[in-house]
Amino acid sequence: MKEQFQAYIQQLQDSICKTLENVDGKAAFKEDLWERPEGGGGRTRVIENGNVFEKGGVNISSVFGKLPEQLQKALNVSQGNFFACGLSLVIHPISPLVPTVHANWRYFEMYDDEGNIVTQWFGGGQDLTPYYLFNEDAIHFHQVCKDACDKHDTTFYPQYKKRCDEYFYNTHRNEGRGIGGLFFDYLKETDQISLQERYDFVTEIGNSFLNSYVPIVEKRKKLKYTLAQKDWQEIRRGRYVEFNLVHDKGTLFGLKTNGRIESILMSLPPKVQWHYNHLPEEGSEEEKLIKVLQEPKNWI
Amino acid sequence: MKEQFQAYIQQLQDSICKTLENVDGKAAFKEDLWERPEGGGGRTRVIENGNVFEKGGVNISSVFGKLPEQLQKALNVSQGNFFACGLSLVIHPISPLVPTVHANWRYFEMYDDEGNIVTQWFGGGQDLTPYYLFNEDAIHFHQVCKDACDKHDTTFYPQYKKRCDEYFYNTHRNEGRGIGGLFFDYLKETDQISLQERYDFVTEIGNSFLNSYVPIVEKRKKLKYTLAQKDWQEIRRGRYVEFNLVHDKGTLFGLKTNGRIESILMSLPPKVQWHYNHLPEEGSEEEKLIKVLQEPKNWI
Repeated sequence: MKEQFQAYIQQLQDSICKTLENVDGKAAFKEDLWERPEGGGGRTRVIENGNVFEKGGVNISSVFGKLPEQLQKALNVSQGNFFACGLSLVIHPISPLVPTVHANWRYFEMYDDEGNIVTQWFGGGQDLTPYYLFNEDAIHFHQVCKDACDKHDTTFYPQYKKRCDEYFYNTHRNEGRGIGGLFFDYLKETDQISLQERYDFVTEIGNSFLNSYVPIVEKRKKLKYTLAQKDWQEIRRGRYVEFNLVHDKGTLFGLKTNGRIESILMSLPPKVQWHYNHLPEEGSEEEKLIKVLQEPKNWI
Repeated sequence: MKEQFQAYIQQLQDSICKTLENVDGKAAFKEDLWERPEGGGGRTRVIENGNVFEKGGVNISSVFGKLPEQLQKALNVSQGNFFACGLSLVIHPISPLVPTVHANWRYFEMYDDEGNIVTQWFGGGQDLTPYYLFNEDAIHFHQVCKDACDKHDTTFYPQYKKRCDEYFYNTHRNEGRGIGGLFFDYLKETDQISLQERYDFVTEIGNSFLNSYVPIVEKRKKLKYTLAQKDWQEIRRGRYVEFNLVHDKGTLFGLKTNGRIESILMSLPPKVQWHYNHLPEEGSEEEKLIKVLQEPKNWI
């Protein structure tokens, strides 16, 4: 399974990068190969200062070794040796009318002292963070997520949509990071579902990613926007930073397992603002967004 | 002691704000009074878009109630009821040649079920974060810190200087947040030192703050700087955000005790940049700063 999923994320990284470069029309991804001293490494690909994308990364990594004690609890495991591989992407467009997107699909193995697999699982998801809310974009994104889920089990979408809303939530702000999507974790083999079926599901979701995001970018990328809208985007990006540094387990996992810092923190937006006690005007588009983020909506 | 220290931080807030307004010459602090639903409240004062200061806050607060379980461990206490008050300030100047400064002086009480004080202590410190390194400024800042410490005990400065270097350290970057200053915590009554003497020491440090920082601002505030230097400042401010959101216990304490978010996160810089894998040029002033941050120096 390890080899199968590693091969999958390699080709998925290629196809996502190629498509996003076409959408951008100017910038190309730059690649950094890196090794982790304790075991493993990765292929980081970053795009910056494009026509459409201000900063983005599409990274794959495979890391293994001894799991730091403080993470055993966070991951609900007691064994010490692990293997983890996955693809992780964050795209920050220039235009405040084009949403930021994040996705991650990963596979995890834990071993006993003899090196036998004790437990293994998939996790992942994709979620959208708009700065201005176009209902039809939110519906499109969720529809693609739902369609991909429904091919496997119609209970998946409502379940993983809910977990996404719960996970990508800035508890200290009482608002969601964005309008959600999918989030699933600890997808293990069960009596009813084989590990191969878990793989088929996760790769179905991975394969659906470009369909969920690219049509939205194409529809919004040429719209005019104001400097005030750009400021609003940069203020909202501050909330993105807060989530990633305070709450996100993936970032924590990377920082605590001595991951490659530049690959982990490539998720942070290029330009960000923090104003004191900034409040959007009543009845404005900005306020409309906040209200939706405070009460996760069913888009479908 | 509670009342004594509360009165002290109120007048200290007044005098710091007044002096900083004079240094700025344009902007004035705006005040927000707030209450904490679980007990207590604060007086937040924020300055923005001045001649000299881009964003800064000088806040006092007094909060009390039941201590969240997850914080008992972090604070090394097992009892459930607490009182905490303190002054906390962060000043982000416009010019990259003027350093950012942070300071905090606080008093803490823990109670048993009958409301008797079980333990009580002071904590605090002040530290400087330059974007360009002027050795004489670093020496001045540390000299003021040392002089204030030495009036009480000549072992304090070396001890609290070292703890400051250790505490304000971005472990995930292997570099200090800045060039340090003082950091002390759990200053309790002992056989040799009374609580009143602890108070005298902490207020001595608080009173020294303006002398440690204002002369540096005055010396640098009119120097010309380039846009590239401003970019560098904004990139370095990203490290400031990383420290505050990932490592800082004070921020964590505020977020987990349902503190007032805008008062806690007022510490975040107004404009920040994250570039992928940004490296300063060899032999540049920017590289010189990084090298000093990687190996804390004895300035005196």
